[in-house]
Amino acid sequence: MEKLAIGIDLGGTNLKGIILNEKGEGRHLTRIPTEAQKGGAHVLKNIIHLIGELVSKEGSEKNIIGVGIGTPGFVDEDGTVSGAENLPGWKGTRIYDGIAEKFDFKVTAANDVTVATMAEAKYGAGRGVRNLVCYALGTGIGGGIVIDHHLYKGTHGMAGELGHIVVETNGIQCNCGLKGCVERYASATGIVNLALKLCSEAGNNNPTPFVVEVNKDPSKVTSKMVYDFVKQNDPVANQVNEIACDMLARAIGITLNTLSPDRVILGGGVMMAGQVIIDTVSKYVPRYCWPMIWEKCDLVIAELGEDSGVLGAGAMVFDEFGC
Amino acid sequence: MEKLAIGIDLGGTNLKGIILNEKGEGRHLTRIPTEAQKGGAHVLKNIIHLIGELVSKEGSEKNIIGVGIGTPGFVDEDGTVSGAENLPGWKGTRIYDGIAEKFDFKVTAANDVTVATMAEAKYGAGRGVRNLVCYALGTGIGGGIVIDHHLYKGTHGMAGELGHIVVETNGIQCNCGLKGCVERYASATGIVNLALKLCSEAGNNNPTPFVVEVNKDPSKVTSKMVYDFVKQNDPVANQVNEIACDMLARAIGITLNTLSPDRVILGGGVMMAGQVIIDTVSKYVPRYCWPMIWEKCDLVIAELGEDSGVLGAGAMVFDEFGC
Repeated sequence: MEKLAIGIDLGGTNLKGIILNEKGEGRHLTRIPTEAQKGGAHVLKNIIHLIGELVSKEGSEKNIIGVGIGTPGFVDEDGTVSGAENLPGWKGTRIYDGIAEKFDFKVTAANDVTVATMAEAKYGAGRGVRNLVCYALGTGIGGGIVIDHHLYKGTHGMAGELGHIVVETNGIQCNCGLKGCVERYASATGIVNLALKLCSEAGNNNPTPFVVEVNKDPSKVTSKMVYDFVKQNDPVANQVNEIACDMLARAIGITLNTLSPDRVILGGGVMMAGQVIIDTVSKYVPRYCWPMIWEKCDLVIAELGEDSGVLGAGAMVFDEFGC
Repeated sequence: MEKLAIGIDLGGTNLKGIILNEKGEGRHLTRIPTEAQKGGAHVLKNIIHLIGELVSKEGSEKNIIGVGIGTPGFVDEDGTVSGAENLPGWKGTRIYDGIAEKFDFKVTAANDVTVATMAEAKYGAGRGVRNLVCYALGTGIGGGIVIDHHLYKGTHGMAGELGHIVVETNGIQCNCGLKGCVERYASATGIVNLALKLCSEAGNNNPTPFVVEVNKDPSKVTSKMVYDFVKQNDPVANQVNEIACDMLARAIGITLNTLSPDRVILGGGVMMAGQVIIDTVSKYVPRYCWPMIWEKCDLVIAELGEDSGVLGAGAMVFDEFGC
């Protein structure tokens, strides 16, 4: 019997669902609107509807061992959502109860980046690796931890908040209330803000092509633009890259001294820049971690793209309920 | 049948051994000299001798499921020692092979503080707790991590180097080669050095009783002396405590955002000072960690004393080889 899992990825705009086998082969990839503005109960109703649609496409419930859900925020042991400030009314929703009423299979859920880490561990850049850590560099920075091949969520689903490792005491104020979180420097937002600051300081005094471009329309700056100029070896863009990667290396160094993982995977939109980030971060990590620990660790780019959410959500089902 | 484990604690001066049952009740506690100066092969011979002595005191090998060893440095998957710079010739020793030749039971080993964490988790301040982290504040700072009730060593036995979390960029030079490691500030050594610095700066300008005492004979200052004056509310001693605890809180905050443990245990000689450290650290932690994660975590004092090494070494046997 082929065992199957349903993976659901809850985004602010869309709910994505898939049916997955143990090899990580997916079918019936389906998208429906999240309709987050209609509140938590409605979002849960939409999730249940999507599960029903996937079951009906599959033709039967009988090989499905469970459903896994990746969501913004955290999910406690009993399936209660916390955090998730960007989805009004979703916080406090009890996911497991609502789904258990409608279907016979088991349910599990976790933070969306935590879940994506499981996809990399099972089917992506972390295949076969025992202990690994993932940093997702997007608008913010999320994280995930795999210990002895299993996803580590923490008792209350809050483990892996790697973006909020404080790397600069009394540093830049973060939305979370802390100061100097690594995501203030090395997320797409952090990189753009660093670029704006350095280019504004550079002003019109022998400006580099990057400075000219940024100061022409600061609202159009993206991390991609920064790295396009890094590839052209623009000195100011290079400086942005050095600062961002130094800060990221501080967080990674701490993660290494704490967990001594076999591999650290860097993913998220910022990593479209590719190897230059790996190389720059690798230059700084030894300042913040034991050489023996760093020697035993690879630093690599994530392999899976935007489907890592649904794939990881399904992978989590096999991880927790057996495969 | 009562299953038994042998626990061995390898110190620079003495080898300590015990026979332990699953409840953590020990018998035949035995000490013999380590004779570290005679080299690694000789130390291993002494360990084998000690195991033999414990077996002979017990009268039989038959209920003993394994031996666990806590050692300075790290132990790789295959039992090879790395690090352990303070035990000449011990690095590179293959512990498992030597013992397996002489006895029928299984062998496991780990860093001594990692091992002591297992004792706290099974029999001490961490009983029943699923995910926990231990900081041992001694001459340096060691650490240990328990995930889902099991000791987490990392693939190469190097996880939990919490004393070398960098908490101050370009901070005080550490013996390990990094700068600003938390152990430079919050270990006994770090606290004494802070005291010497602050008291030297205070000099003879309205010195507090603490400043007078320290400057009388700086070579006699201990962390205990600092905390005796903290209890008398000496303002300079208080300042030492505030700095040390702020730095420790930075490391703990990072540990919390990374692992979201249910409990953090503080042990080691410095913790003879007791609740004042817990209280001061608790004041600073919220600056470095998410409030939701901190809410779900206790910060407590270790319960086991100097026998935590042998007890943890035995506990590790039950943890790895079943109980």
